[in-house]
Amino acid sequence: MPKILLIQGANMVHLGKREPQFYGTTTARELDALVTGWARERGVTLEIYYTNVEGEAINRIYRALDEGFDGLLMNPAGFTHAGYALRDCIKGAALPYVEVHMTNVEKREIKSVLGVAAEGVVAGFGTTSYRLGLDALLDVLERRRAALRQLA
Amino acid sequence: MPKILLIQGANMVHLGKREPQFYGTTTARELDALVTGWARERGVTLEIYYTNVEGEAINRIYRALDEGFDGLLMNPAGFTHAGYALRDCIKGAALPYVEVHMTNVEKREIKSVLGVAAEGVVAGFGTTSYRLGLDALLDVLERRRAALRQLA
Amino acid sequence: MPKILLIQGANMVHLGKREPQFYGTTTARELDALVTGWARERGVTLEIYYTNVEGEAINRIYRALDEGFDGLLMNPAGFTHAGYALRDCIKGAALPYVEVHMTNVEKREIKSVLGVAAEGVVAGFGTTSYRLGLDALLDVLERRRAALRQLA
Amino acid sequence: MPKILLIQGANMVHLGKREPQFYGTTTARELDALVTGWARERGVTLEIYYTNVEGEAINRIYRALDEGFDGLLMNPAGFTHAGYALRDCIKGAALPYVEVHMTNVEKREIKSVLGVAAEGVVAGFGTTSYRLGLDALLDVLERRRAALRQLA
Amino acid sequence: MPKILLIQGANMVHLGKREPQFYGTTTARELDALVTGWARERGVTLEIYYTNVEGEAINRIYRALDEGFDGLLMNPAGFTHAGYALRDCIKGAALPYVEVHMTNVEKREIKSVLGVAAEGVVAGFGTTSYRLGLDALLDVLERRRAALRQLA
Amino acid sequence: MPKILLIQGANMVHLGKREPQFYGTTTARELDALVTGWARERGVTLEIYYTNVEGEAINRIYRALDEGFDGLLMNPAGFTHAGYALRDCIKGAALPYVEVHMTNVEKREIKSVLGVAAEGVVAGFGTTSYRLGLDALLDVLERRRAALRQLA
Amino acid sequence: MPKILLIQGANMVHLGKREPQFYGTTTARELDALVTGWARERGVTLEIYYTNVEGEAINRIYRALDEGFDGLLMNPAGFTHAGYALRDCIKGAALPYVEVHMTNVEKREIKSVLGVAAEGVVAGFGTTSYRLGLDALLDVLERRRAALRQLA
Amino acid sequence: MPKILLIQGANMVHLGKREPQFYGTTTARELDALVTGWARERGVTLEIYYTNVEGEAINRIYRALDEGFDGLLMNPAGFTHAGYALRDCIKGAALPYVEVHMTNVEKREIKSVLGVAAEGVVAGFGTTSYRLGLDALLDVLERRRAALRQLA
Amino acid sequence: MPKILLIQGANMVHLGKREPQFYGTTTARELDALVTGWARERGVTLEIYYTNVEGEAINRIYRALDEGFDGLLMNPAGFTHAGYALRDCIKGAALPYVEVHMTNVEKREIKSVLGVAAEGVVAGFGTTSYRLGLDALLDVLERRRAALRQLA
Amino acid sequence: MPKILLIQGANMVHLGKREPQFYGTTTARELDALVTGWARERGVTLEIYYTNVEGEAINRIYRALDEGFDGLLMNPAGFTHAGYALRDCIKGAALPYVEVHMTNVEKREIKSVLGVAAEGVVAGFGTTSYRLGLDALLDVLERRRAALRQLA
Amino acid sequence: MPKILLIQGANMVHLGKREPQFYGTTTARELDALVTGWARERGVTLEIYYTNVEGEAINRIYRALDEGFDGLLMNPAGFTHAGYALRDCIKGAALPYVEVHMTNVEKREIKSVLGVAAEGVVAGFGTTSYRLGLDALLDVLERRRAALRQLA
Amino acid sequence: MPKILLIQGANMVHLGKREPQFYGTTTARELDALVTGWARERGVTLEIYYTNVEGEAINRIYRALDEGFDGLLMNPAGFTHAGYALRDCIKGAALPYVEVHMTNVEKREIKSVLGVAAEGVVAGFGTTSYRLGLDALLDVLERRRAALRQLA
Repeated sequence: MPKILLIQGANMVHLGKREPQFYGTTTARELDALVTGWARERGVTLEIYYTNVEGEAINRIYRALDEGFDGLLMNPAGFTHAGYALRDCIKGAALPYVEVHMTNVEKREIKSVLGVAAEGVVAGFGTTSYRLGLDALLDVLERRRAALRQLA
Repeated sequence: MPKILLIQGANMVHLGKREPQFYGTTTARELDALVTGWARERGVTLEIYYTNVEGEAINRIYRALDEGFDGLLMNPAGFTHAGYALRDCIKGAALPYVEVHMTNVEKREIKSVLGVAAEGVVAGFGTTSYRLGLDALLDVLERRRAALRQLA
Repeated sequence: MPKILLIQGANMVHLGKREPQFYGTTTARELDALVTGWARERGVTLEIYYTNVEGEAINRIYRALDEGFDGLLMNPAGFTHAGYALRDCIKGAALPYVEVHMTNVEKREIKSVLGVAAEGVVAGFGTTSYRLGLDALLDVLERRRAALRQLA
Repeated sequence: MPKILLIQGANMVHLGKREPQFYGTTTARELDALVTGWARERGVTLEIYYTNVEGEAINRIYRALDEGFDGLLMNPAGFTHAGYALRDCIKGAALPYVEVHMTNVEKREIKSVLGVAAEGVVAGFGTTSYRLGLDALLDVLERRRAALRQLA
Repeated sequence: MPKILLIQGANMVHLGKREPQFYGTTTARELDALVTGWARERGVTLEIYYTNVEGEAINRIYRALDEGFDGLLMNPAGFTHAGYALRDCIKGAALPYVEVHMTNVEKREIKSVLGVAAEGVVAGFGTTSYRLGLDALLDVLERRRAALRQLA
Repeated sequence: MPKILLIQGANMVHLGKREPQFYGTTTARELDALVTGWARERGVTLEIYYTNVEGEAINRIYRALDEGFDGLLMNPAGFTHAGYALRDCIKGAALPYVEVHMTNVEKREIKSVLGVAAEGVVAGFGTTSYRLGLDALLDVLERRRAALRQLA
Repeated sequence: MPKILLIQGANMVHLGKREPQFYGTTTARELDALVTGWARERGVTLEIYYTNVEGEAINRIYRALDEGFDGLLMNPAGFTHAGYALRDCIKGAALPYVEVHMTNVEKREIKSVLGVAAEGVVAGFGTTSYRLGLDALLDVLERRRAALRQLA
Repeated sequence: MPKILLIQGANMVHLGKREPQFYGTTTARELDALVTGWARERGVTLEIYYTNVEGEAINRIYRALDEGFDGLLMNPAGFTHAGYALRDCIKGAALPYVEVHMTNVEKREIKSVLGVAAEGVVAGFGTTSYRLGLDALLDVLERRRAALRQLA
Repeated sequence: MPKILLIQGANMVHLGKREPQFYGTTTARELDALVTGWARERGVTLEIYYTNVEGEAINRIYRALDEGFDGLLMNPAGFTHAGYALRDCIKGAALPYVEVHMTNVEKREIKSVLGVAAEGVVAGFGTTSYRLGLDALLDVLERRRAALRQLA
Repeated sequence: MPKILLIQGANMVHLGKREPQFYGTTTARELDALVTGWARERGVTLEIYYTNVEGEAINRIYRALDEGFDGLLMNPAGFTHAGYALRDCIKGAALPYVEVHMTNVEKREIKSVLGVAAEGVVAGFGTTSYRLGLDALLDVLERRRAALRQLA
Repeated sequence: MPKILLIQGANMVHLGKREPQFYGTTTARELDALVTGWARERGVTLEIYYTNVEGEAINRIYRALDEGFDGLLMNPAGFTHAGYALRDCIKGAALPYVEVHMTNVEKREIKSVLGVAAEGVVAGFGTTSYRLGLDALLDVLERRRAALRQLA
Repeated sequence: MPKILLIQGANMVHLGKREPQFYGTTTARELDALVTGWARERGVTLEIYYTNVEGEAINRIYRALDEGFDGLLMNPAGFTHAGYALRDCIKGAALPYVEVHMTNVEKREIKSVLGVAAEGVVAGFGTTSYRLGLDALLDVLERRRAALRQLA
């Protein structure tokens, strides 16, 4: 049963209260319920962590390594633009990382500095981006396990 | 029952024969079988179109408008770098478009000129990118139908 | 009686069906009728050629050289952004070329790579751009004939 | 009977005396006669204003607003490169503006900072650029009147 | 006996008819005779393929892989500026590629996007560029065979 | 009686102790007294918050939304250069924001990434920048109230 | 009693008649009354000078030096983009300069070339920018006088 | 006896009163006396013209053409940065132009847009730059006369 | 006996566990022992502070000023890319700062935004960078003391 | 019997001892033997000159002009990146120049500043680049002689 | 007993006579004595080589390879900005290279093109940079020997 | 009697033999005679030094310092583009430097990296540039002596 950490980056805690033209009206709490439900359906242990401080996200990821998490799902949100320290952290950590964005960041001319550290990116599908990102991460973990089995 | 066009851009027909370090060993034919299977499971009518000629992709999209297709899934592949005419075509057409890439293009420092015309992007998960892209496109279509019902 | 080739570049065949805020609601067929009428009034033999494939436009231009055409009118449309091969073709061909755009491309921050190969450019006046472009091309041809007469 | 202001920007007063390889040998006076003739044929009241001082062009445009002019035709000439104040003036004024250049400025790698404030641009056809620009401006005015009639 | 495909890119079919100051007066037909002669002298099976459509060049290369060609000689010509899809095709294909240009492209400030996919480049020697390119490609093939023999 | 939050960004707590050639010798404590006095004179409830951690500034702003603050005055100081997450926070929050700088940042070639989220900016007048910024913010709030009254 | 020159740069004379979405509906005349009133309340002798010609603004500033003015308040408006000669003039003149803009120029991606010559900048508060700019300039003058008294 | 026009560009009239660290303490009047003396010694008819308005400089140059001037000496000063219209004027006029600067503009990272229209440039020697520039211009004129004599 | 603060920036706490190809296998704890040993040998009081939060590093530096520290040694690590607030802090603080990196950052195309605030930089020698950095900082402090003695 | 100078630029003397993954294991001495042999087969007088000093290469070229050399073959090697003085020398000299590189410099993202001074370039074929470059240079010389004969 | 070559690049021979604000008053001769002393203390055979000619530095390095030197210490000085040939030489040579600068080059906005070829860099500590650079190079050599012993 | 060193940079020794369209037909020897004559007329001891090696120019300048030269006149020629080491040398040396170019380098889009180290620049007047440069340098020396006398 895979154990996944979901980090919600800067400003995500305020979801549903700001810029609904971009992010819709679902609140952070409602989104948590959605993602928790999707995790349960897929037999995944999920922990959700919100922070507005980049260094706290880094701290959380290092703790996750010790706690045996299998993968990281993250919407970097406000950290997307200049989160270089966070990027270095993820590149160094062995935790597979899938990046999600609710909006099509490319259309808004936003460049994620974290993308180079990701297995892949899902962007533009509102709350559904989280469900697809979860599926993508599970697929990555499954392929890794398969590759390991083959080596054994 | 939604009707979806999948366009495989320049060089995709040769999948599995070139650069396996990036694209794996699945052939175009095997990928077709996979995607067709996923479409069938989801009750989707899917047509797959391969071309190495950008203008033929444009021609195919305009025909799709007349034939009542509901959405476009595309891996622009070789058209990713300079497919401006294709981008204009998609921006002009009313067909919702989801872009997929087998590799994490950002990691390889490739910038898609087509991304600004997409609802969203899924990149980096090998053949699974197509399954997630299909799910994403269905979600987009469902939300559009829901919005229309509300207006009625 | 001058013989003129009008090339309608990528996406023009779909005129009137896409982005009416930019291009109005006149369809390609209606535009053909307009331009044909203007040509008839001016005693011009006009052939209209639509294509979404850049190389087909190049082929058409080389054929036009053999068929004795006197000038080229073109709305490069989708080829505007990256039509370098088409530009090389026109620079090499002896056919005087007038470029037309229905919209003021400069206002939309679009840079035509073909402009350097043109006698001149008319942009921003909707379907009227074609009428003015035709007049401009006829003027260019007339001045060339006058210059030749003077040499004789 | 439309009332149009033609502004000839910096250095135009010296036409025919400088750089004939670009601008031909027609003098400013001869060009005035040509344009005045074209205006008369089209039933247009035309006033021609020459200036080498950008701010005087701005002053003239504001006066034109008070005097009931319907449109502005301008060859910015020497103001093309850095006429930002003039551009702001035109953007602010309600007077439809058509920009003309005798040469194909794009071929000479000249970028007009005023183009974004224009309805459209005609460039590259020598003195004929003025005739085409006049036709283009009349067409713009006619379409505006038609739109107003429809609203009434 | 090595089997080599020579692709003549966009606008090459018109050789000898356009821009003689750059390309001389040899026609495409005459060049074919020259290159065919050089191939015969060197015991090479040569097929020459002209196209103005980038995607057709890609199609031809994939067919060449199936037909057992040993190497690709190409003058990308009009594809030089933006032939990214063609570049991806060559990078993916196992066919050794030598690029030739009749002119010294660097002197004309032209940057080939295809160069990174080539074994090497010969540019600037008119029709002789083809003879040198052929020799270069044969040398590449010979060295590969030698390396293989050493492994065996 | 308007309620205003003043955020003093990174390094401001050390005011008066660092770079007096730029910032003078007034200490943070003395500045607090000044600003508090100006607030009292204007009948404003003011809370001053110092932080060197960008995420804490974000946290404080979200709390301010819940606590019924009417406006935000901020000297981003060290956050000026790369405070993208803070900028996203302010853009999303409904709190009117006025930005102040003690120095003329433009003269020192510093570009604020936060400026695009502000109603306006006051820069270059030492501690007086705060007094002017306060007046500016009160003016913004008054105009908003007036606009609302008009709608009612 | 300080003597201050207010220069209203290119296009300001037309205030209230152009682009009300940016500049509101207050006319130049009404603004004059406002600013004159604020000057009177603060015991300031104020002269207002409008010009659309950059060189005339320069002339006015040099005259102001001879006439004993103490400071310069200016909304460069149309001179903001390329007023380099004006900037050199201000840098050379000993007159303290405060720059005001009615709009938040940064939000509109406008860069003032004059900002480096200013004591400070006030931007974004409509007509209130003038009142704040006046207060800022008086504060600058007061601090200078205080510094001089200390030296004496 | 050669007839030379000396134009002193924007802000030069204020020489000796501004930025003595760059321009010394010689006033415009004193400089006039110096240059007039040098002209007299060399048998040159010299007229000095000061202006802060770029368009007036253009007007003066066109008048000079009619008045039979042989050459133009100019310190563009404030027009150095963006005097494109002035540059176009000089390029068009047949008057040989020598550019002078009192300071080494390159050291101050100033790029003259007028330099491309000059025979040559003398920069960095204070008032001596004018004497050297005068000598340089006389030399240019002498060489031209010699070349004409040879043709006759 | 000099008192030195060593700050280990973002991700350093995880040393030895991430990217051993760059950073080797020495852990943070082992590095602490090494550096502490070197400090003891040199008679230096050393305090080591790890943090992943940029603002906490700033807080620590301001505290160090109050606690009488003589110098700052820092490996900015994850703060290297965008630690502008930290840079402003160091520039403002009077504490001499020596920057160390375990890898040759230049070779990895990493640009430190903090370098401009340092006395000097030591990069590329693994854990030895710390020993050299300590020696460098002691040398800086010694030279300062010598200079002060000379003044006294 | 043509007389050709071969210049081997900076670092070439060390061939075969450095970076064999790029340059193979042939030593400078062995390469000399190869090239000398090719020259003898083609009836060419060849002189080979090695230098690590750019100015010595320039000196050698000027001497070659006096000694009646017919052409220059050069591998600029270390001078490729910034050999501007050498480039100016070749552009000024009448000696036809063919540039050779053992590696495909474009693939390694190296831009030759000397290419603009060459007749043409051969790059990427190891030691064979010299043989092809020699053939190319002979062809250039032959065509020049033919052109001269035609004029006579 | 390691054998180390110290190269002092362009202008270093004049140390102590130029720009003391950057480089202090120690002369080249005094520095030689310092460095020779440090080398003796550490049991190192040191040879110091001064040159203002980049190619001579290259020549010296190749000779050093033949003479059995173990490492290279260099202050590239004037070669820092454009010493590409020297950089290629060092990259090709097997000699470990440590780069030293007396000043913090980053603070002076100087970018070393040689840094990418170095093991590491020490910059900013005056003559002490040499002592630290020597220690760094000895550490590099020691680690290499240790690695070799482990393999044996 | 001032003592002046004239350095003729890379390629100048070949003057009169290369690119007469730029540099005329005067040979280096003839130019020497001209400049020597001008020096004699002005009572100047002049030494002329030609070199194609940048480092030799640096060596010559350092020797000149020891030999009591008063000033440096130089045409950097081929060193103009990348002579950074030479620039550092001149910046460090106390010798006043005047830069001369025979052509108007700005017109040819050549940027001198040495200009920032010069008192001033004279460019564009053929051999006359040297005479004017000599006059300029004498003027600089005279002004320095005058300033010294005033201090005494």
